[in-house]
Amino acid sequence: MSEEFPIRDRMTGFVFGLQDDICEAIEEIDGGSFGEDEWERDGGGGGRSRVLQDGTVFEKAGVGVSVVMGELSERAAREMGGGAHIEDLNFWATGVSLVFHPHNPMAPTVHANYRYFERGRGTEPGSWWFGGGSDLTPAYLFEEDAEHFHRVHKEALDAHGPDHYPRFKEWCDDYFYIEHREEGRGVGGIFFDNLHEEGSVDELFDLVSDCGHAFLPAYLPILERRMDMPYEEKHKRWQQLRRGRYVEFNLVYDRGTKFGLRTKGRIESILMSLPLTARWEYMPEEGSREREMLEVLENPREWV
Amino acid sequence: MSEEFPIRDRMTGFVFGLQDDICEAIEEIDGGSFGEDEWERDGGGGGRSRVLQDGTVFEKAGVGVSVVMGELSERAAREMGGGAHIEDLNFWATGVSLVFHPHNPMAPTVHANYRYFERGRGTEPGSWWFGGGSDLTPAYLFEEDAEHFHRVHKEALDAHGPDHYPRFKEWCDDYFYIEHREEGRGVGGIFFDNLHEEGSVDELFDLVSDCGHAFLPAYLPILERRMDMPYEEKHKRWQQLRRGRYVEFNLVYDRGTKFGLRTKGRIESILMSLPLTARWEYMPEEGSREREMLEVLENPREWV
Repeated sequence: MSEEFPIRDRMTGFVFGLQDDICEAIEEIDGGSFGEDEWERDGGGGGRSRVLQDGTVFEKAGVGVSVVMGELSERAAREMGGGAHIEDLNFWATGVSLVFHPHNPMAPTVHANYRYFERGRGTEPGSWWFGGGSDLTPAYLFEEDAEHFHRVHKEALDAHGPDHYPRFKEWCDDYFYIEHREEGRGVGGIFFDNLHEEGSVDELFDLVSDCGHAFLPAYLPILERRMDMPYEEKHKRWQQLRRGRYVEFNLVYDRGTKFGLRTKGRIESILMSLPLTARWEYMPEEGSREREMLEVLENPREWV
Repeated sequence: MSEEFPIRDRMTGFVFGLQDDICEAIEEIDGGSFGEDEWERDGGGGGRSRVLQDGTVFEKAGVGVSVVMGELSERAAREMGGGAHIEDLNFWATGVSLVFHPHNPMAPTVHANYRYFERGRGTEPGSWWFGGGSDLTPAYLFEEDAEHFHRVHKEALDAHGPDHYPRFKEWCDDYFYIEHREEGRGVGGIFFDNLHEEGSVDELFDLVSDCGHAFLPAYLPILERRMDMPYEEKHKRWQQLRRGRYVEFNLVYDRGTKFGLRTKGRIESILMSLPLTARWEYMPEEGSREREMLEVLENPREWV
């Protein structure tokens, strides 16, 4: 424990603990085991990546945590978002990030990420901030799933103020938008970045930690009611096409992915989010259930 | 025919003719037929896209031609490369572009693209230029294939001067480089852009046209000796992983793709180059034949 930087320790404990809790729950459902890699970062720090690939329930499930520090390039500092006014290029960051792609096309893909960032010594106003969120990406629409996912996250946020959920819900719809397709990546959830004005560092840690702990109650009930649903070849094909869109979003738009690739981060960890398999057809046909999904992706709804 | 712009007509005739020739040859080999879409562009012009999907030999084969014109945004004009010094934002362009992904993992993916571009009326020095090239992307290394592909393109270029092939070969290795993987997309071929100082517009048209006509003799003999080779599940898996890298290159680095997505071009035509299926494993295992391929991708060779 460092008495000098208590928030660093609290956040580090949170991300490692969340990785453990989530992996344990996922292993119990899948029956398979996560493989684990510990890695070190050249510039300082490292992480622990866990991946369950080609399991019983999951095509690919990855959960990574990292604690990294060092010196940013001028460009990286500028693009990083929060703290751009800080001259000191030293940084310290920790976060947890996960993406789960189930086999069953009725069971949605899900993503979550919570992170804390400091520039310099993290003492000046705006030199520390939190970011994160969680969003759901179904191939087929089940309204009750979207409602449940949003409701659980709304309840976690409402404990910290009434404005957070509406703001972070909209932020999520804006962020996870595939511009060239004119559609959202999924049915959204919550997203926020550069959070520091909304409370003290401890208050915001509590908010982020509550969101992180909302992940399992938000996702598991959905997974459990979809993972054994019967499906046909055509549903699998559509899921594969939607996985292609997931790849498009992550490689073309996702700021974390682009930043990681450009700054030569650990490739295997950065691209852990990509599905095991994906498909691109030229002008794919759509039936009515596929069209129903697209309607929602083209016109985000209020779910709670 | 337009007497005012004879090169536009020659180039347009070339790209449409090459599309016909190549599609005919590919249909004969595959047994399947290309579907065709004619499309119009909002800002002016249009194109003809042909795709053969899930055929006998090809997983996906797309050949598109377009003739487009209109006014560029300042940003597009700046990023377009050649002709950046021209104030007139009007442009005129035509090109042919193809990507073939065969089923058999021993048969390589291939790409070719030849294009002509004008800014303003195309009369000032540097206000017109040619671009293009062709490159081969095998999942498994057959040295004689890489040698043949390079040799045929070298012969086409040598007829126009001894310096072209070495220059365009290196340019190709530099361009089709997946920086975050520190490997080439494939075994290269030729690539050039902003070609206008190397000869008159007619001389450079002849060079480009000879390269375009070299495509079938460069690729077909390779395809024919690989398309029926026996293979196992593990070879297919490796091919799918390499297809994933192809997607990474096209979405993260390819200038044409990025430009097309940003300027809201016709998505189906822009992403026609993506494979039908692709795969991303976390830390995939490699055997010796896979390692042999990677060696060459990491260290480009001289093939002729």
